[in-house]
Amino acid sequence: MKKLNKGPVSKLKIIPLGGLEQIGLNITAFQYEDSIIVVDCGIAFPEDDMLGIDLCIPDVSFLKDNIEKVKGFVITHGHEDHIGALPYVLKEVNAPIYATKLTVGLIDHKLEEHGLLKSVKRKVVKHGQSINLGSFRIEFIKTNHSIADASALAIYCPAGIVVHTGDFKVDYTPVFGDAIDLQRFGEIGKKGVLALMCDSTNAEREGFTKSEKTIGKIFDSLFAEHSRNRIIVATFASNVDRVQQIINTACKYDRKVVVEGRSMVNVIDTAQELGYLKVPENTLIDIDQIKNYPDEKIVLVTTGSQGESMAALSRMAMNIHRKVQIKPNDTIIFSSNPIPGNEKSVSKVINELEAKGAEVIFQDVHVSGHACREEIKLIYSLVKPKYSIPVHGEFRHRRAQATIAEELGYDHEHILMAHSGDIIELDEETGRIAGHVHTGTVYVDGLGVGDVGNVVLRDRQHLAEDGIVIIVLTLERGTGQVLAGPDIISRGFVYVREADALLEDSTDVLEDSLDKLADRGITDWGKIKSTLRDDLSDYLWKKTKRRPMILPIIMEVE
Amino acid sequence: MKKLNKGPVSKLKIIPLGGLEQIGLNITAFQYEDSIIVVDCGIAFPEDDMLGIDLCIPDVSFLKDNIEKVKGFVITHGHEDHIGALPYVLKEVNAPIYATKLTVGLIDHKLEEHGLLKSVKRKVVKHGQSINLGSFRIEFIKTNHSIADASALAIYCPAGIVVHTGDFKVDYTPVFGDAIDLQRFGEIGKKGVLALMCDSTNAEREGFTKSEKTIGKIFDSLFAEHSRNRIIVATFASNVDRVQQIINTACKYDRKVVVEGRSMVNVIDTAQELGYLKVPENTLIDIDQIKNYPDEKIVLVTTGSQGESMAALSRMAMNIHRKVQIKPNDTIIFSSNPIPGNEKSVSKVINELEAKGAEVIFQDVHVSGHACREEIKLIYSLVKPKYSIPVHGEFRHRRAQATIAEELGYDHEHILMAHSGDIIELDEETGRIAGHVHTGTVYVDGLGVGDVGNVVLRDRQHLAEDGIVIIVLTLERGTGQVLAGPDIISRGFVYVREADALLEDSTDVLEDSLDKLADRGITDWGKIKSTLRDDLSDYLWKKTKRRPMILPIIMEVE
Repeated sequence: MKKLNKGPVSKLKIIPLGGLEQIGLNITAFQYEDSIIVVDCGIAFPEDDMLGIDLCIPDVSFLKDNIEKVKGFVITHGHEDHIGALPYVLKEVNAPIYATKLTVGLIDHKLEEHGLLKSVKRKVVKHGQSINLGSFRIEFIKTNHSIADASALAIYCPAGIVVHTGDFKVDYTPVFGDAIDLQRFGEIGKKGVLALMCDSTNAEREGFTKSEKTIGKIFDSLFAEHSRNRIIVATFASNVDRVQQIINTACKYDRKVVVEGRSMVNVIDTAQELGYLKVPENTLIDIDQIKNYPDEKIVLVTTGSQGESMAALSRMAMNIHRKVQIKPNDTIIFSSNPIPGNEKSVSKVINELEAKGAEVIFQDVHVSGHACREEIKLIYSLVKPKYSIPVHGEFRHRRAQATIAEELGYDHEHILMAHSGDIIELDEETGRIAGHVHTGTVYVDGLGVGDVGNVVLRDRQHLAEDGIVIIVLTLERGTGQVLAGPDIISRGFVYVREADALLEDSTDVLEDSLDKLADRGITDWGKIKSTLRDDLSDYLWKKTKRRPMILPIIMEVE
Repeated sequence: MKKLNKGPVSKLKIIPLGGLEQIGLNITAFQYEDSIIVVDCGIAFPEDDMLGIDLCIPDVSFLKDNIEKVKGFVITHGHEDHIGALPYVLKEVNAPIYATKLTVGLIDHKLEEHGLLKSVKRKVVKHGQSINLGSFRIEFIKTNHSIADASALAIYCPAGIVVHTGDFKVDYTPVFGDAIDLQRFGEIGKKGVLALMCDSTNAEREGFTKSEKTIGKIFDSLFAEHSRNRIIVATFASNVDRVQQIINTACKYDRKVVVEGRSMVNVIDTAQELGYLKVPENTLIDIDQIKNYPDEKIVLVTTGSQGESMAALSRMAMNIHRKVQIKPNDTIIFSSNPIPGNEKSVSKVINELEAKGAEVIFQDVHVSGHACREEIKLIYSLVKPKYSIPVHGEFRHRRAQATIAEELGYDHEHILMAHSGDIIELDEETGRIAGHVHTGTVYVDGLGVGDVGNVVLRDRQHLAEDGIVIIVLTLERGTGQVLAGPDIISRGFVYVREADALLEDSTDVLEDSLDKLADRGITDWGKIKSTLRDDLSDYLWKKTKRRPMILPIIMEVE
């Protein structure tokens, strides 16, 4: 707050570095003069056409180019789409991390895996506390979300106050800790807020999101109804409150709890250690102990609620889990909704479970962690920002929030619909997109970060679509005479039985092409390769209406 | 009905040849002694892991092996998952087709494309009429569905009556033609029905499916509200009644109608020609005439409601449609729900349309064509079959229908949950799975039918995941001395910039391997190839944690 009341005030720059074109990759830079702070640093999961990619991280060239200005990373909550890219980004831009206790706990786990625990500073901030980073002061405000310890941020700088909701909902009766600090939103609103950056995920949905606590009652009645069955509950590993409610109901019905799935075990360990999860003694048992208890004394809490092929529940469904076999006496509860894009894989798991005779319950055992339309209106009405900057969600969701803002009386000039990389410039007088910085998505594949680009992906798509046909040819150096080949090898093109005749005819086509090239005295390798490729491509298209990748390889010997 | 009252009665065999493990591929054989009839003959669309596949058709080996017994194909309605495989299957098993008028019209269009119009017999059957095919009599019963002219079938043979609902809903106020003939279901039920094969698609949904007519009122109010906008409606090409209602509302609001998208044009032409669609004169205009009318005088009816990348609406959204450009004054109505698996592509199209400033309406402008739980109960209560055979839907949906049957008092022995290929054997005394015939899915890729099998798909998946690395080597015949190479070429593996160093080191690895092989005097090509493959694979895994397909190719010269 150095510059407050000290002559002319500079503009605040807000630069979303990712996340506005897709789900995930949430990362936003705030710049005031020579101070930059970064809010969140998430990954995105690959789209269907990003073949072989494990995950996506944001391109942070902007931060690297301004590395001396970066004062720190401020993290709203511990979900992967807000913390997942930290280990990758910190390797390039090392700066301290500020977050609430559980969030830091989850980040620590990540940093440890990447061997960064010693080299990166983390500071735990409590709700209500503020931190000073260069020209910025950042206040953490209590909110509710599908993970404990979520925060909104009030970001103060001489140009004004920005309120960033993070991912949030309004839960008047949360399972753990306090309800969202609506009073503080109101109080800050009264001071005058320059801009509100509000979660758009559920902006298309009417009404209010239900309290997490309603799910506890549902567990109670499901456990009562299925008192003779073994119960398996699949949910999001990070939803600590959900797990707490499963444990509460398990205790009430005198069942032991088994936790299965790597990420579930990690989160529960961290949450228990930090006091976010209360597990009565002798409640948790090891998976190997299941056999010592009858079905009606067991609850399995597991990952795999999104049908992820390698998750514990999916492995149980496919009969490849080492320790748990699904049987007709099982009741499996999906305490989750499929995230868009996962519907089919979830359905596949449900089919497999039911085919093994188990009962599957997948409706109405979940509430969202994001605010619906009425909650968004509430936040606007408390904060009353000058500018609306809808964030978090696909364009359609952010557009739906813009519509809400319009209904509340905001005109087009005060609703700023940005794209990733846009520089949003703000002060009391004006708010506008004032420029653009380079952003993008970096693909992580195995150990490689950024070594798979669009050319490689295009090749993978081509290979995936119609396979590859390789032409090999050995020529005599100098004369260019064919010493061996042309041989043709294919993979992923046609079934061997059919391929034999087709590839034999293809060899004739290539020999014709080579004869013609020889007649014309052409010895240039480039020309030979392109002629063979084109002639074979035409032939195969005519015969099969497919376009495999064709790769001519020429070797030369003395 | 030859055998009626003539001594001992044989058992009826019902053999679902596809469709019970996935959506689509609906085809069921009914065999009584030497007579076989086939109900429906549909395609399935490829799953995500069927890379490059255009469509799936059923393996009809069973019909080919019994070709002299096959009396005909009886088709319930004109959707692709019930008629799409006819051209492929008829090439192998030619038999006459029986269906209602619109259904035959749509089949004719398909047969014409495949040059089969002259060689295949088609017969139009009216609702209420029966046909005799060998030992079978088949009666067509009026139902309602999301395509006009849908039928249930009552299949009579000496072993008893089977009622097959086809895909259906109960619509008391249909847009075109009569409501479902519930009286006839009751009348046949009174005679005593051996088995009911009922549509399971919506068996997980409570209540009743709304009447198609309710959508007309929604169009009316949407057109009234958007009286100054150009309106674009995306819906299923085959939903003639939906198109009729769009046309009705267009006429009411004095708009011209443009039809866009190949399948939409086809269906509308056929429906209009056969009298299933009534279009007032001077209502339809050509797409090129759009420019002659103001926005508020135009409605575009288009394909692409499922976000299919090549459909008209998707091309408009991506700005690659040759004749229609999306603009801020457009209101785009999705009169459809995303079919499971299409959610993300639909969302992508909505994002693109909204980013161009158009308003997109995608909620509550659609009703399903399938019966919900109460309708299924109604049909059971009218037909009162001895056996329940849930069909049409994934396992979870068929299981949900089984649960309904249980609620209605059916025990496990009278609910037959079959798999594709199961032989369901039925008579008055017993109903059971009595055997199994070979079935499966045949992939169609370009012109190839069945030439892409699991090996090819596995290769495509491998290629898609991590690309390919090719090792080429020329050896001297006899000595086995390396004359050229090893050279390494990769596609879809790593970005060129990164690949250079990696592949250079890989060459060293291979040269080491070759030296060792030479030292050990190994000249066997198979051994050389497998050693090179393994050594390179280990090296690349260590360096990248990826496993590209590695293909060693050895050429030999004198």
